[in-house]
Amino acid sequence: MGRVTVRRPVLRLRAGLGSRRPDTLAAEEPLEIRVAGRPLTVTMRTPGDDFDLAMGFCVSEGVVRRAADIVAVRYCLGATVDGSNTYNVVDVQLADGVPLPDPSLERNFDTTSSCGLCGKASLDAVRTKAVWPVADDPLRIDPATLAVLPDRLRAAQRVFDRTGGLHAAGLFTAAGELVVLREDIGRHNAVDKVVGHASRAGMLPLRSTVLMVSGRASFELVQKAVMAGIPMLAAVSAPSSLAVDLAEESGLTLVGFLRGDSMNVYAGADRLVTSGSLALDMVAGRPRGDEDAAHGHPAVGVSP
Amino acid sequence: MGRVTVRRPVLRLRAGLGSRRPDTLAAEEPLEIRVAGRPLTVTMRTPGDDFDLAMGFCVSEGVVRRAADIVAVRYCLGATVDGSNTYNVVDVQLADGVPLPDPSLERNFDTTSSCGLCGKASLDAVRTKAVWPVADDPLRIDPATLAVLPDRLRAAQRVFDRTGGLHAAGLFTAAGELVVLREDIGRHNAVDKVVGHASRAGMLPLRSTVLMVSGRASFELVQKAVMAGIPMLAAVSAPSSLAVDLAEESGLTLVGFLRGDSMNVYAGADRLVTSGSLALDMVAGRPRGDEDAAHGHPAVGVSP
Repeated sequence: MGRVTVRRPVLRLRAGLGSRRPDTLAAEEPLEIRVAGRPLTVTMRTPGDDFDLAMGFCVSEGVVRRAADIVAVRYCLGATVDGSNTYNVVDVQLADGVPLPDPSLERNFDTTSSCGLCGKASLDAVRTKAVWPVADDPLRIDPATLAVLPDRLRAAQRVFDRTGGLHAAGLFTAAGELVVLREDIGRHNAVDKVVGHASRAGMLPLRSTVLMVSGRASFELVQKAVMAGIPMLAAVSAPSSLAVDLAEESGLTLVGFLRGDSMNVYAGADRLVTSGSLALDMVAGRPRGDEDAAHGHPAVGVSP
Repeated sequence: MGRVTVRRPVLRLRAGLGSRRPDTLAAEEPLEIRVAGRPLTVTMRTPGDDFDLAMGFCVSEGVVRRAADIVAVRYCLGATVDGSNTYNVVDVQLADGVPLPDPSLERNFDTTSSCGLCGKASLDAVRTKAVWPVADDPLRIDPATLAVLPDRLRAAQRVFDRTGGLHAAGLFTAAGELVVLREDIGRHNAVDKVVGHASRAGMLPLRSTVLMVSGRASFELVQKAVMAGIPMLAAVSAPSSLAVDLAEESGLTLVGFLRGDSMNVYAGADRLVTSGSLALDMVAGRPRGDEDAAHGHPAVGVSP
């Protein structure tokens, strides 16, 4: 694509000294996603993997369920500036029998059918749209396997090292093998690109996989995981309250602050098992006062 | 408001040892912003300062220009769940004579009037909406003053220390004094809350101020600064290509990777002057090959 990064001049100041040099920036361009010729959304994204992004977005929003629901994704020929195609408008053509998306989706208002808009309404909306149950997913994973995912994600992030400005999302097997990595200026786009790639490869639902993201875990990211049938989301930083709510309600395992062998499990801890097959939750879940941890009492061991 | 953070149980794993303890999470809830009773947008935000958020969003999108354009902002009484107000729907009542927003705004499609959607169309849309010119703003600031802003922002971020999950935006004077700080789970919301606060205080346009954000600088954040008449945006992390384009076109000074006395200036470097009143741009801008910097030749000094 050649537009993932852009070179620009920059004035660098270091301890009062200035120098001019070229810098590499993450490209940001608008992408309009149309379904059957009708505009559905516009997102600011890093160009590249646009068909994956469009397809992933359609899965995340419940417009389609599987690759077969889409006949074609193509750049709009009429989307030109000065005679050149901008490659910033894609059209998703649905298979016969797949209903057009609810017009309310266009307005980003799928959660407002309830007059009393609230977190619960947002949870309800996902429950209504989700087609792949993740609660019964048999995934079990050793924390030691999770511990290596951030390094593997970073190692695969060649572009990150050049711009410092891209979010990453990686899909991993239960054995910790990277299936696909995508980067974008928007964290949600990176996840949509991963889901879209998997969808086009006929991999939906993504059972027994782990989605790892470089930043925080918002409600929106948990929603995208649930919609793709992914049973575990791990994030380098903090989750939000509503992300935890949705994870609990959906039966998704949500891990935050995953940094080496240090991590916080906010929901679905029963999927984390040591090689001794002992669920961490069963040991660490013994009734004990919060004060114990606060006062430095020895933590409960999890090894068998 | 009491809902900025939420306590939840978490299973902490550290080097193979697990413990259960309560954790503090950033609250995330949907907010629907209505104008004259008509839904305009829904954003996932951290509750608190909702009227500022609504007002700032209206300024950023060009719906209003100043505080006087808005008669009232209030929570919708009818927005209830189980008989209780959700405080998640606000209505903005416009003053007589202020036109209702373009319906295209509802659909997040203000940049698609052009068939060839592209970065240029996004820039054009901002130029059309902007009412406060920032190019001629007389702001001049010493890099040494900029250097202390990140610490001041962090020092004011009490909530950040508790959740690790909130973006911050702070408005500073040219002397480096903090005017207002706002935090949110969404970086754009944090900026809207700052702009909304300033708007309600009758401070628009925000001439000769610096907006500092804790994360990256996207196109959207530059747009919000321009729409509020802010001449300088400083970010802890990287800007995107389109953010730099908009800064250049608008005459906004864009600083990235601001970390102590280290920073990159991507646009409008003439506003950075040392106490000797010498514009850095004039010294550091001397013609020299990029290779010089790459090969470690001495940088050009900026002191007078």
